[in-house]
Amino acid sequence: MKSPAYATLAACIALGCGNIAFAKTTTAHATSAQVPVVSTNITEADVLAAQQAWGKALVQISNDYEQGGFAKAKATAEAVLDAAYGYNMGAVLFKPTLTVAPQTFRTTKEGALAYFVGGNPNFPNDKGFALKGWRSVSISNAGIHLHGNTATSMGNVSITDKAGKTTTVDKTWGYVRDDRGNLRIVLHHSSLPYQP
Amino acid sequence: MKSPAYATLAACIALGCGNIAFAKTTTAHATSAQVPVVSTNITEADVLAAQQAWGKALVQISNDYEQGGFAKAKATAEAVLDAAYGYNMGAVLFKPTLTVAPQTFRTTKEGALAYFVGGNPNFPNDKGFALKGWRSVSISNAGIHLHGNTATSMGNVSITDKAGKTTTVDKTWGYVRDDRGNLRIVLHHSSLPYQP
Amino acid sequence: MKSPAYATLAACIALGCGNIAFAKTTTAHATSAQVPVVSTNITEADVLAAQQAWGKALVQISNDYEQGGFAKAKATAEAVLDAAYGYNMGAVLFKPTLTVAPQTFRTTKEGALAYFVGGNPNFPNDKGFALKGWRSVSISNAGIHLHGNTATSMGNVSITDKAGKTTTVDKTWGYVRDDRGNLRIVLHHSSLPYQP
Amino acid sequence: MKSPAYATLAACIALGCGNIAFAKTTTAHATSAQVPVVSTNITEADVLAAQQAWGKALVQISNDYEQGGFAKAKATAEAVLDAAYGYNMGAVLFKPTLTVAPQTFRTTKEGALAYFVGGNPNFPNDKGFALKGWRSVSISNAGIHLHGNTATSMGNVSITDKAGKTTTVDKTWGYVRDDRGNLRIVLHHSSLPYQP
Repeated sequence: MKSPAYATLAACIALGCGNIAFAKTTTAHATSAQVPVVSTNITEADVLAAQQAWGKALVQISNDYEQGGFAKAKATAEAVLDAAYGYNMGAVLFKPTLTVAPQTFRTTKEGALAYFVGGNPNFPNDKGFALKGWRSVSISNAGIHLHGNTATSMGNVSITDKAGKTTTVDKTWGYVRDDRGNLRIVLHHSSLPYQP
Repeated sequence: MKSPAYATLAACIALGCGNIAFAKTTTAHATSAQVPVVSTNITEADVLAAQQAWGKALVQISNDYEQGGFAKAKATAEAVLDAAYGYNMGAVLFKPTLTVAPQTFRTTKEGALAYFVGGNPNFPNDKGFALKGWRSVSISNAGIHLHGNTATSMGNVSITDKAGKTTTVDKTWGYVRDDRGNLRIVLHHSSLPYQP
Repeated sequence: MKSPAYATLAACIALGCGNIAFAKTTTAHATSAQVPVVSTNITEADVLAAQQAWGKALVQISNDYEQGGFAKAKATAEAVLDAAYGYNMGAVLFKPTLTVAPQTFRTTKEGALAYFVGGNPNFPNDKGFALKGWRSVSISNAGIHLHGNTATSMGNVSITDKAGKTTTVDKTWGYVRDDRGNLRIVLHHSSLPYQP
Repeated sequence: MKSPAYATLAACIALGCGNIAFAKTTTAHATSAQVPVVSTNITEADVLAAQQAWGKALVQISNDYEQGGFAKAKATAEAVLDAAYGYNMGAVLFKPTLTVAPQTFRTTKEGALAYFVGGNPNFPNDKGFALKGWRSVSISNAGIHLHGNTATSMGNVSITDKAGKTTTVDKTWGYVRDDRGNLRIVLHHSSLPYQP
């Protein structure tokens, strides 16, 4: 496994996605009677935090594009993929909102990066979804499942651009907790609402 | 937990979804040296079998509707939900292909049944997706994740009706293995392909 | 899977281990914002409760033996094994305190029952550990691990008999959470302290 | 999380426990139809390999002690603890064969290291179990449980010293698979057979 560039997505966002040292995320706590308890389970709070971090990362890529150009946005997007997605484990089950066959599914990091920032001739239809001036992200969950070091959530995600226009999608995320305690997205299915 | 009407979806399909006795699905095997091994893990073969069973169930509901009318189709659909979905555990993360806000997500069994067969005034937009004369289902996976007694898959599902028309959707399924060894769908996100 | 005689060990103890109806143990809860959350994870509280239930069950078998004789004690012990151990899943990794080779490990329910109440010619060295007039059980954990629907604990268990004599053992338990939310012991290693 | 000194215990043993580069242990495989499958599940073969590696590590510590003295043995033992135990996650549930109260349980790496090589005034009863001239290890499993990225095994472990004397213990191991795919011991209960 290659070392990701960032220990956590939160750190990436907070520090401008520069190279930082790892901070240990302990998984242990002691009970009142001082019995050590080790848990690898994902909590609801972990899921909510990972969702917020995803939203902030999307906004940051847009901001970095406007302030630092394509190269900076791409570097941030790659840092986000390294820190918050599970491509280090193998194929990620990623169906972005706007992709089409035969490149609908982006199981590789290259495909995911192309979707977020475009500019990759291997993915000629990609326009750079994350570069579209996003300013805020709001998440409304329909339900959450917690199963050990994995979790899934489903609901609506609404993203608003600099013109104030909001787009709402139906979104499913699946997470795996890594050894540092960070959640990594291993499943991401996003789709525009059905138009009858 | 209420007793499901069927031990397995396969049994439901094979036997016409009548009430049947439970057949034990053992989870244990012995190695060459006779060491008993107990595993609760879902295998790739389990996922592929569950996908095939889902397709057969959809076709059966259509067949039952044509041959036995609404009541029979509804009974079969309910049996399928009892045997192959995880509503016995609580909320299922189900985003059907054709639902719209504010009833996009069908986290309850009632909502899922309404989607499949319609006829529920609480879900007035539902027309009965499973009643539309489906004849065959074909599944092409983009990737599969196996994590203990949970698994997820993403890919294309193509369903063909009696007129020979095929509809292809982008579909994600998440499964949990129950105590009998059967896979239950706890996550189901289906969407029509993006139209640029 | 055969239906266990009791839905939970707690019910078995509270109601005298007679045949009772299943009580649903829901695994779902709603957050403040009414988002349904389904979790199959074992909590520390679940482990502590299962440990206490094991202690009470041991005392109850002793009490039933004194008040109802061997048949009653055996019925209770069998009910405990059905409700609180995982023999319904296959082999349980059970090393009781006082067993010897070649019958050290009791991976079958028959072997476990023989250890607790004796009287089985297939296990001639078994004297009936649970019949020895136990009055109270005290548990001191050295640590607990929580991994999804499995958990393990290690520590000291002290059991006191009617003469006031206390025996302390080193004990490891492993649990799997079943579909009803009950913890089942699938690993149990008990040993007398090392005597230098 | 500190970086362990060795990527795998096998590498530690094969290369003399010197500092080595990480080798990626991929967890992904492609099916015949080229569908990528990602699994974090422990297999029976993984458990058997981890058991063999533990035996080889014990013998190596003895060999290093005889050939390189205490410092070399201690360095190897520490490398083994870093690579093959889960102290990086927090408390390990470790009850060694020969420890006594109040230091029976060695939930910290310091305590485990003291047990293996002695020489730590904080653990005055420890004589250095791994230094006793061990030459071979044989393992006979009574059963194995596989639950996602965790697994447990129970059985007999027989270790033979340079004088040809064999000691057999009852041993339980619990494992967690780390992000590199390596098994780490998070539970280890060892006890001498009961003497009636």
